[in-house]
Amino acid sequence: MAETFVIAQGGGPTAVINQTMVGATLEVLRRHPGARVLGARHGVRGVRDGDYVVLSDVPEAQLRLIAGTPSAALGSTRDKPDAAYCDKVLEGLKKVSADAFIYIGGNDTSGTQQILTDASGGSIAFVHAPKTIDNDLMENDHTPGFISAAEFVAGAFLSVDLDFRALPGVYVAIVMGRHAGFLTAASAAWRLDEDSGPHLIYVPERAFSVPRFIDDVRAKLARHKRCIVAVSEGVSTEDGRSLVETIVPEERLERDAHGNLKLSGGDLGLAFEHALRDGLPGQRARVDALGYMPRGSIAAISKVDQQEAFDAGVHAVEAAAQGGGSVALQFDGEKTVLKIVPLSSVAAKTRHMPDDYLDVSGTSLSEKGMAYMKRLVPKKYDVGKPFV
Amino acid sequence: MAETFVIAQGGGPTAVINQTMVGATLEVLRRHPGARVLGARHGVRGVRDGDYVVLSDVPEAQLRLIAGTPSAALGSTRDKPDAAYCDKVLEGLKKVSADAFIYIGGNDTSGTQQILTDASGGSIAFVHAPKTIDNDLMENDHTPGFISAAEFVAGAFLSVDLDFRALPGVYVAIVMGRHAGFLTAASAAWRLDEDSGPHLIYVPERAFSVPRFIDDVRAKLARHKRCIVAVSEGVSTEDGRSLVETIVPEERLERDAHGNLKLSGGDLGLAFEHALRDGLPGQRARVDALGYMPRGSIAAISKVDQQEAFDAGVHAVEAAAQGGGSVALQFDGEKTVLKIVPLSSVAAKTRHMPDDYLDVSGTSLSEKGMAYMKRLVPKKYDVGKPFV
Repeated sequence: MAETFVIAQGGGPTAVINQTMVGATLEVLRRHPGARVLGARHGVRGVRDGDYVVLSDVPEAQLRLIAGTPSAALGSTRDKPDAAYCDKVLEGLKKVSADAFIYIGGNDTSGTQQILTDASGGSIAFVHAPKTIDNDLMENDHTPGFISAAEFVAGAFLSVDLDFRALPGVYVAIVMGRHAGFLTAASAAWRLDEDSGPHLIYVPERAFSVPRFIDDVRAKLARHKRCIVAVSEGVSTEDGRSLVETIVPEERLERDAHGNLKLSGGDLGLAFEHALRDGLPGQRARVDALGYMPRGSIAAISKVDQQEAFDAGVHAVEAAAQGGGSVALQFDGEKTVLKIVPLSSVAAKTRHMPDDYLDVSGTSLSEKGMAYMKRLVPKKYDVGKPFV
Repeated sequence: MAETFVIAQGGGPTAVINQTMVGATLEVLRRHPGARVLGARHGVRGVRDGDYVVLSDVPEAQLRLIAGTPSAALGSTRDKPDAAYCDKVLEGLKKVSADAFIYIGGNDTSGTQQILTDASGGSIAFVHAPKTIDNDLMENDHTPGFISAAEFVAGAFLSVDLDFRALPGVYVAIVMGRHAGFLTAASAAWRLDEDSGPHLIYVPERAFSVPRFIDDVRAKLARHKRCIVAVSEGVSTEDGRSLVETIVPEERLERDAHGNLKLSGGDLGLAFEHALRDGLPGQRARVDALGYMPRGSIAAISKVDQQEAFDAGVHAVEAAAQGGGSVALQFDGEKTVLKIVPLSSVAAKTRHMPDDYLDVSGTSLSEKGMAYMKRLVPKKYDVGKPFV
């Protein structure tokens, strides 16, 4: 009987996660003509419920069109399988005689693959293909999805900085990023000059304090006449609790199956508005949450990101041939190279932004951090310097 | 002595307001070689204070680069001149022997030009060149800045709708728009099919009620398994008060010199979060404010918008030759044509979205409304239909 590959997508969508699905599908068909590729709808839930689209029956032109479309075309899930759920997923895979299960996602998704690997008898190859705008997977220099999201964020901050040159004030934008500050740090990638925003960057890797924040803003205002601030939704106070937890009453906190807190809600934004109103009375201040826009924006899809995501899908099929593992994007000093690493080295772990990507202030990028961003998110637009 | 033209930019920046400034500058120099073009920094404030950049001394290549850069390169202002301020502005214009003052902006800016015209002796030509993402100027089919902002909004909603197909729930995005719903309605421009979001659109032209909103969302959820909502920041309740006023205590409401309320703050977003939590308990719901992103995004600049904004600047110089007036973008049934109309027909007035741009539900575009959006914001991306 012909080979059967099952592919699914997990966690938050990205602008290029469909590239990985299509890269894997086309590579399976190239290596194994006549093989069956089943796309499970909504991640492991589709495997459990036998809810599939037969990707190997979809014409290549349509697959290519979907590859270029943001968000997870198969649907996604936040389900975290417990033992019983896990048994049903394995049963589901056996029912379709799956030889391999390629699951495209971030830390939680790789964790699910680890659980399934441990629970299975070994007859199925479990592969994790990387995807996350958070850029927080171990073993990876960067992850598919990050560059496009970073482009969105870099463009948003360049644009808003120009806006606030015209009408000065304080601007705070809250950026997705639970434990890792990479995406927030990308806000600085397209700074025009030393006067450009973001003037302050707050990442989850450094403790956040409201009084220090107000002092920082006051100092930047004095120097630049405006202050543009990028804040990770996951910033935490000295005691290690996320700022949201210190603001929102426990009974109103919302968590997903992986225990992840809902972070980017209106409470955090309003807390910043109130902190600024109380700390800098009379000062024009605006707070936006970039929210869902950066992670799958059709207006910010990087060609490099697309190609790397596609290649990650191709490599996932090789990882399946090797019996399983996780595909990783590494940097060899000159270019990005794809490797296959053990699932256990990635699964459910978090890679933080290196300490030395920030300078001594802790609120702006060091040369090393800036070099990393410029390598991944090179300047895309020519901009004329304003007269103010 | 050579002619002197003063140019300034007022109100909220847009992605193409610099095109108008550069279009006017280059047209002045074409018509009047040797003329002096002074750019006032921060609108009328720069005129009052004699704070100018000599635009006629700036190399054309640099002007062209600035034309392509979002936001007001001269800086902007929300100042509304009273009689004393007005006298100082007129004094300032006389001090530089201005023959004409071209002020690029929206309703408030045209209102300022009207005040100056009335207060002046008639020796200076006062011209208003249109600019506003709100698209709410009388006499105009649409306004420079709107198309680019509309592209951002259309792209954001297409992207988020794809995101919420993958991970279903309710999504509400608050869109700038104080009195006119055009920009919020643009959220529907790139809908893929009948199942696509936005599923509900709330504009300031129709009374908003929270209980009806919850009922609407519930119905759409039942039908589409997700519900994507576009809300104008300026939506008002039955009694005519803006929703923000019904939420925020009077002492915390923030107004600018024109009496405009600050609308898009966190309070409105949080109010929607709470309304959804109470009205649809347990339902995944997310609220973002698009905030400042649509109005000057470097990633969403329409070439048509750029050209029209440039042409509006060129026409402003003709309007000056005619003794003053307001430049208007009209539609002749086939294409956009530029006209010069009396300042008084535009000044400080608001054009609302026509009633028949919405269908009977009041929460989605009619064929006529959709035709308008498709004419101005044609599809820009090819998208593959998701499997979910």
